[in-house]
Amino acid sequence: MESLRVALGSRAYPIHLGAGLIDQPGLYAPHVRGSAALISNEVVLPLYGARVRKALEAAGARVTEIGVPDGEATKAWRTLDLVFDRLLEARLGRDMTIVALGGGVVGDLAGFVAATYQRGVAFIQVPTTLLAQVDSSVGGKTAINHPRGKNMIGAFHQPVAVISDVATLDTLPERELRAGLAEVIKHGAALDAAFFAWLEAHIDELVARERAALVHAVRRSCELKAAIVAEDERESGRRALLNLGHTFGHAIEAATGFGPWLHGEAVAVGLVLAARLSSRAGLLPVADAERIARLVDRAGLPTRAPALSRHEWHELMSVDKKSAGGRVRFVLLEGMGRAQLHAGVEPRLVDEVLDAAAQ
Amino acid sequence: MESLRVALGSRAYPIHLGAGLIDQPGLYAPHVRGSAALISNEVVLPLYGARVRKALEAAGARVTEIGVPDGEATKAWRTLDLVFDRLLEARLGRDMTIVALGGGVVGDLAGFVAATYQRGVAFIQVPTTLLAQVDSSVGGKTAINHPRGKNMIGAFHQPVAVISDVATLDTLPERELRAGLAEVIKHGAALDAAFFAWLEAHIDELVARERAALVHAVRRSCELKAAIVAEDERESGRRALLNLGHTFGHAIEAATGFGPWLHGEAVAVGLVLAARLSSRAGLLPVADAERIARLVDRAGLPTRAPALSRHEWHELMSVDKKSAGGRVRFVLLEGMGRAQLHAGVEPRLVDEVLDAAAQ
Repeated sequence: MESLRVALGSRAYPIHLGAGLIDQPGLYAPHVRGSAALISNEVVLPLYGARVRKALEAAGARVTEIGVPDGEATKAWRTLDLVFDRLLEARLGRDMTIVALGGGVVGDLAGFVAATYQRGVAFIQVPTTLLAQVDSSVGGKTAINHPRGKNMIGAFHQPVAVISDVATLDTLPERELRAGLAEVIKHGAALDAAFFAWLEAHIDELVARERAALVHAVRRSCELKAAIVAEDERESGRRALLNLGHTFGHAIEAATGFGPWLHGEAVAVGLVLAARLSSRAGLLPVADAERIARLVDRAGLPTRAPALSRHEWHELMSVDKKSAGGRVRFVLLEGMGRAQLHAGVEPRLVDEVLDAAAQ
Repeated sequence: MESLRVALGSRAYPIHLGAGLIDQPGLYAPHVRGSAALISNEVVLPLYGARVRKALEAAGARVTEIGVPDGEATKAWRTLDLVFDRLLEARLGRDMTIVALGGGVVGDLAGFVAATYQRGVAFIQVPTTLLAQVDSSVGGKTAINHPRGKNMIGAFHQPVAVISDVATLDTLPERELRAGLAEVIKHGAALDAAFFAWLEAHIDELVARERAALVHAVRRSCELKAAIVAEDERESGRRALLNLGHTFGHAIEAATGFGPWLHGEAVAVGLVLAARLSSRAGLLPVADAERIARLVDRAGLPTRAPALSRHEWHELMSVDKKSAGGRVRFVLLEGMGRAQLHAGVEPRLVDEVLDAAAQ
């Protein structure tokens, strides 16, 4: 087992990384007092629920299990309200700990529950998808969706620990593994050219789930993300760079009703579009934009956007959380591994990229 | 105008106190950038909406007005979702400021919107009821209700400023003014015996809305509350003392469906019950408990609880946010002005107090 640390002063927390961690009571024990609510979905709960429950009970917790439906549509008021009903029914107080077992959807939802139940309770992230292990479980972003936009309602609420058991990736459906690779590629493209080159060299091993490669990809992603989060917890500056590809990606998810496209798939297309937009803006050599498109493709991810009108794109992108003064801001690449936030991107360039992508 | 400060480091903020403040652009200007959402209810909006809008516009803001229904039932998912719709429709970004104009309900709801819209935006409290000016607008508690309990879903999210215009109390309905006095009495009873004695001497002036008396009551309440909040922002310790009377009070509100009883009225009864429980526990002289009941009565507030069964009381109190390890904790008085949190209160004593109150 390795442990990284997200350096956030009084809210600092560890990320434990290794195989077989979900069974270790000692990893939960420092963070549970009396009772715990284990929130997971109907797919993950049968696979790992009993093991996590057993470890939590060995750590001294009385456990309430709450299952939610699988899929992005779960990140909605309706589910939230069901979870609150269950927590209150079980009379769980402010001294309980929420344990989020699953992927990004479960983590975002359960994290938002933790942020708002009785004005905030502790929560542990136990990510079981690659996407959650490399990205969404770290950094305290929690949210639900709104029909007008992804993650529009949420809170910054840091977990007290992240327990990343890479052995749980063994049961991850192929498509979800690939979706997770989109965020790994994003980390390389946005922040670390050497890591991007490593990914080009090891993408086949990652797709084949070779554990050593996966562990390296998870560790390096967490290191990159933890450093940025420590620097800018609430995304007033550098943290926005982790949004590379997400302005386009969120629009795709919203346009298709949250579900048909996995988040990672939408981000994959978003990365390709953001890279091409960077090239059109004269910031990134075309060859580098194509390296990104090629790596996305080799990871088995889509590189083409669904057919949306320009109007739909602009409508959906205009609610992006990075927008300021009513203008959409894009994260662009000023070279591989060098993401920057840009406010003044010409709409004409965006249209050119979108038109080309739709062909 | 006087200004107090809530000392919370990087989240410190001023409380401006005086008559005619809502018209002063200079009080809003430091906290608005570009756009503002003015959230109020259908009663307060016609009275003060135009004036606040004008001041905000003079401070440089583009203003979106959002009206919500009056009354405690507004603190619910449904309203929240309506407000989010309006904010997204207006394409308001993370750089906007929410302005909560109204009483505790508007402040709690709009504050929770601010805490969760796009993971948190700035908000200004402009309280127009006595209850909001002396209590709910200060300290960053935001929430909505759940059928099983008051304020069960919420967040700690501090305002960037509180603008308390005591002239707005002129239009406050009699019943609401009296409800606000319950929290003023609470501050004296819980924290400051001298202030309690001052209230005994000036309660008639307060009920008659004499401005000098009101200003003193608001200022002293804010001072007492600001000091506690600065010490314990997230209610892990002393801040719970401000909950004197609220365990019983919240149960009354939940039992009656949030609405028939104003929050302050329920707290008034709660104060009387908490004082009597303190006496039965041998902590408070009976004479002091009766001073509290008498002052509550002189303020025109109820001192008797609605008829609930023991079972109902215990059910409703068991979800109290102060409970720990499944046990309800009460704030009791160990003398006038000396509130303390007690975990081990015998249920028998609670029953005796409730039985006596029901007669």
